[in-house]
Amino acid sequence: MTEAAKTAIAQADTIVGYRTYLDLIPELLIGKEVLSSSMMQEVDRCRRALELAEAGQEIALVCGGDPGIYAMAGLVFELAAERDSQAEITVIPGLAALNSCAARLGAPLMHDFAAISLSDLLTPWSLIEKRLSAAASADFVIVLYNPKSKKRSDHIGRARQLIMEHRAASTPVGIVTAATRENEAITITTLERLLEAEINMQSSVIIGNSTTFQWRDFMVTPRGYADKYNLS
Amino acid sequence: MTEAAKTAIAQADTIVGYRTYLDLIPELLIGKEVLSSSMMQEVDRCRRALELAEAGQEIALVCGGDPGIYAMAGLVFELAAERDSQAEITVIPGLAALNSCAARLGAPLMHDFAAISLSDLLTPWSLIEKRLSAAASADFVIVLYNPKSKKRSDHIGRARQLIMEHRAASTPVGIVTAATRENEAITITTLERLLEAEINMQSSVIIGNSTTFQWRDFMVTPRGYADKYNLS
Repeated sequence: MTEAAKTAIAQADTIVGYRTYLDLIPELLIGKEVLSSSMMQEVDRCRRALELAEAGQEIALVCGGDPGIYAMAGLVFELAAERDSQAEITVIPGLAALNSCAARLGAPLMHDFAAISLSDLLTPWSLIEKRLSAAASADFVIVLYNPKSKKRSDHIGRARQLIMEHRAASTPVGIVTAATRENEAITITTLERLLEAEINMQSSVIIGNSTTFQWRDFMVTPRGYADKYNLS
Repeated sequence: MTEAAKTAIAQADTIVGYRTYLDLIPELLIGKEVLSSSMMQEVDRCRRALELAEAGQEIALVCGGDPGIYAMAGLVFELAAERDSQAEITVIPGLAALNSCAARLGAPLMHDFAAISLSDLLTPWSLIEKRLSAAASADFVIVLYNPKSKKRSDHIGRARQLIMEHRAASTPVGIVTAATRENEAITITTLERLLEAEINMQSSVIIGNSTTFQWRDFMVTPRGYADKYNLS
């Protein structure tokens, strides 16, 4: 957590958020009004946060990761735009899963990458497939969000199949589950053996580009295709 | 800056880094050995950091942004792999330009995105063009790193041209220069008018997907292509 995030919470009158995340910061909630997921659902919470802000309160809306990457900032702005809200909105960036997972794996994101969510709840699966193929064909490192859930256990297999049309079976793949949490698990495998690895709803998967290599327990994408640095 | 980063610096014997970044944290350098860019260049600094760590020192190698996204972590691992270093290496994630710039623009990264550097120092320009076209054709939000330098003033124009083959001229584009610094500048424009905007070496450019819209001074990419939330 950054200093800026702590300061924003300290300055707020009311803290709004999903219970799981608020439970991680009990010391920051002392003396605050709290609206959590035990009281209302996501859309209602965001709408209520806007209403309170419009009425002059200072609100901190808390989520996990970076609110600006596949997270809460979008819903807030969608709702604010819908009602043309007069609330003053500031997004405080945080560490997204891609930042945390890349760090745990070594240095996989040293070159161009694409982030793709395999959830088809709000996106047609055909568009997700198109993106997987486009990213694989242009040698992007690929970060997969939402690789698997109970309802979507086969999406990761289909993604692997599409990517393997453009990339070697030996391509390094990193899987980070519950990054920095107690139950954190880190696996480095290959595209070929990807489906043998444990992957669940808390996992992010990073697939290397054609130059990515494994060294010890790390996954490293070199910074250049041309070797201008003459390291040796 | 995160608590984890501050703690790592506090625990280190020697701080290594580019002078520009070390100048931002004078209070964290008190009582530390410091190796900065005024003494040696990037590759030599990293190699020296590894040597000192191998000799038993605790070293903090400091860079701007997130060391894991287009930054120093890669060079460290490339050099460590080359010498099969016994140093214990931990990457502490931080806020990359894409986190900070997205936050300043509102919520542009709510859906799949591709990060592409327009620098052809270490990458063939033909591969960069291939990635621009692939990302544009599959409706990724596109984050451009290194959009312009003195030597590469025309790359952004060529990127715009390739993207416009797949995306409307009215697509929102956000430009953030020197995010969170004193000279920060934020512009929201369109693909059509992109080249009229001030863009320099400190800028990042975010190009919306087909659903991204501007509301007030914000750029918002809706979370879904299907509207399952029924916001209205």
